[in-house]
Amino acid sequence: MKDVRVGVLGATGAVGREMMNILEERNFPVSELRPLASAHSAGREMKFRGESVFVRQATPESFRGLDIVLGAAEADIARQFAPDILAAGAVFVDNSSAFRLQPEVPLVVPEINAGDVAWHSGIISNPNCSTIITLVAVKGINRLSTIKNMVASTYQAVSGAGAGGIAELAQQMQALSAGEPLVSKIFPYQIAQNLIPRIGGFTANGYTAEEMKLLNEGRKIMHLPGMRVTCTCVRVPVVRSHSISVSVYTERDLSVEEVRAQLALEDGVVLVDDPAAERYPMPLETSGQDKVFVGRIRKDMAFDNGIALWCCGDQVRKGAATNTVQIAELLLK
Amino acid sequence: MKDVRVGVLGATGAVGREMMNILEERNFPVSELRPLASAHSAGREMKFRGESVFVRQATPESFRGLDIVLGAAEADIARQFAPDILAAGAVFVDNSSAFRLQPEVPLVVPEINAGDVAWHSGIISNPNCSTIITLVAVKGINRLSTIKNMVASTYQAVSGAGAGGIAELAQQMQALSAGEPLVSKIFPYQIAQNLIPRIGGFTANGYTAEEMKLLNEGRKIMHLPGMRVTCTCVRVPVVRSHSISVSVYTERDLSVEEVRAQLALEDGVVLVDDPAAERYPMPLETSGQDKVFVGRIRKDMAFDNGIALWCCGDQVRKGAATNTVQIAELLLK
Repeated sequence: MKDVRVGVLGATGAVGREMMNILEERNFPVSELRPLASAHSAGREMKFRGESVFVRQATPESFRGLDIVLGAAEADIARQFAPDILAAGAVFVDNSSAFRLQPEVPLVVPEINAGDVAWHSGIISNPNCSTIITLVAVKGINRLSTIKNMVASTYQAVSGAGAGGIAELAQQMQALSAGEPLVSKIFPYQIAQNLIPRIGGFTANGYTAEEMKLLNEGRKIMHLPGMRVTCTCVRVPVVRSHSISVSVYTERDLSVEEVRAQLALEDGVVLVDDPAAERYPMPLETSGQDKVFVGRIRKDMAFDNGIALWCCGDQVRKGAATNTVQIAELLLK
Repeated sequence: MKDVRVGVLGATGAVGREMMNILEERNFPVSELRPLASAHSAGREMKFRGESVFVRQATPESFRGLDIVLGAAEADIARQFAPDILAAGAVFVDNSSAFRLQPEVPLVVPEINAGDVAWHSGIISNPNCSTIITLVAVKGINRLSTIKNMVASTYQAVSGAGAGGIAELAQQMQALSAGEPLVSKIFPYQIAQNLIPRIGGFTANGYTAEEMKLLNEGRKIMHLPGMRVTCTCVRVPVVRSHSISVSVYTERDLSVEEVRAQLALEDGVVLVDDPAAERYPMPLETSGQDKVFVGRIRKDMAFDNGIALWCCGDQVRKGAATNTVQIAELLLK
């Protein structure tokens, strides 16, 4: 495909805007770019390749003539418009959770399971942000020996709650410094100088929806239906890179040296693991980039055959917009 | 004992000052309070029970006439003065890491192993802060069934680096809001809006000294020499409560209900675990208190017989000063 007509559903949010930036940065062969959003944003001017484009209200008719629609909207909006997108003959590459676990929908991290794009029937889902970052970090380990178990604790940036989350942290930091009242609308409690150990709604087993994603989406993406995963998701006062502390346990025992050597070869991974030089991944240094940064690699001491590591990646980019555009690039081949 | 003559070594730091507050709050029977510090702080005025007390320079002679010395100084200072404290006939309750793993020195969390105070021979050590908070949170689980393995990731407040760490975060937050230059002296990198996955120096196995403490101190305090522990310690932009995401694996399978019921009975623990009411522990709500707050209790899904939970506790108080004063109280009995 060249001269691709691309729609962005939810174009005015943090992820939608980043999708437009990334289409431009990666020279995606866009012949028409159509930003779509709610009635509230209709008519707003955005920039694409230096030209003005105007946001249209998403309606059932908005998708006619498009080849690919990138979804940056919430799950209910994605569900609402998916039939219209398919009826228009476009492929829907959706970042919401709406279709991720449906058996007929591929769930793709291009560095892991690009081949799954082949069997799509109109919808391809983009995984959860912390799931993408964690799996990119550990995929090289799984190449050395199959991952059986995983224990992960996340440190998730406010950008995961969208542009409003970023603004809320900024307001609270300003207010704390100035001794003024703090506003908490996006997050259930103050997030500046605090941690909130709850992302997404609670499910019946006491885990949050966000925590269950690493298990359910991880199994599907990695083609490891028996992988056992526990995850704890925590919001931290960081702007836009997620970090994850993870222990993975594999079929055979791996040395730190072979894991480091493998990770240095992996697509999408930057190894930052030099304790003597005080080098390890940090969210501040990894923001605005498309790679997943991995370090602190060492033998896990709690169980046999374990490797512990720490990884960081930009939630808005690799965790969402970049991965979605990468999937769209696979469709061009 | 009553009419106890108490010295505080390192009285002008964050922990030393808090020790003096807590001696007063808990009506410790102090007949003389002697704040000791470096030559730099000598002569400084401090308050104790509304009266002025003046800081003296710590010298080998400073401990004469004291019954108990509470140590709030670094390990090298503790090592330097320990012989003088013992020679003066005082008991040294030390918060530094200097003596914690010495076999003749009890390492005590009063809610766990108060009985170990009995066999001291002049020195009793106070454990590492995140170790205390984690162990108080899980001790009730160990009472139900012996803990075999533990995987922990910490979210540690800047107060762990002393008063200077607190000041550095405040300066950086102010500077970020005002668009002014940030100063990083205490921490190796900016901590505001960032995470630093390195606390303490690196050891040969790739773990930091801080990370090894939960294993080594945990085994000694819990009387579980075979407990296997992996820990990842991360500095977060929070003022003074540490939080820990921990999975514990026990000999027999435990239900969430029995764990909750047990933890509700445990000394030093406050159960905050009501997802439907949006209640879980957060560092902001637990600062300035002496309890360890535990919530997010659920079945671990990575391995059999596991329980995952989240806990928070004030690092300066229960993590250091309060626990030290509690040990001193045991000496009075």
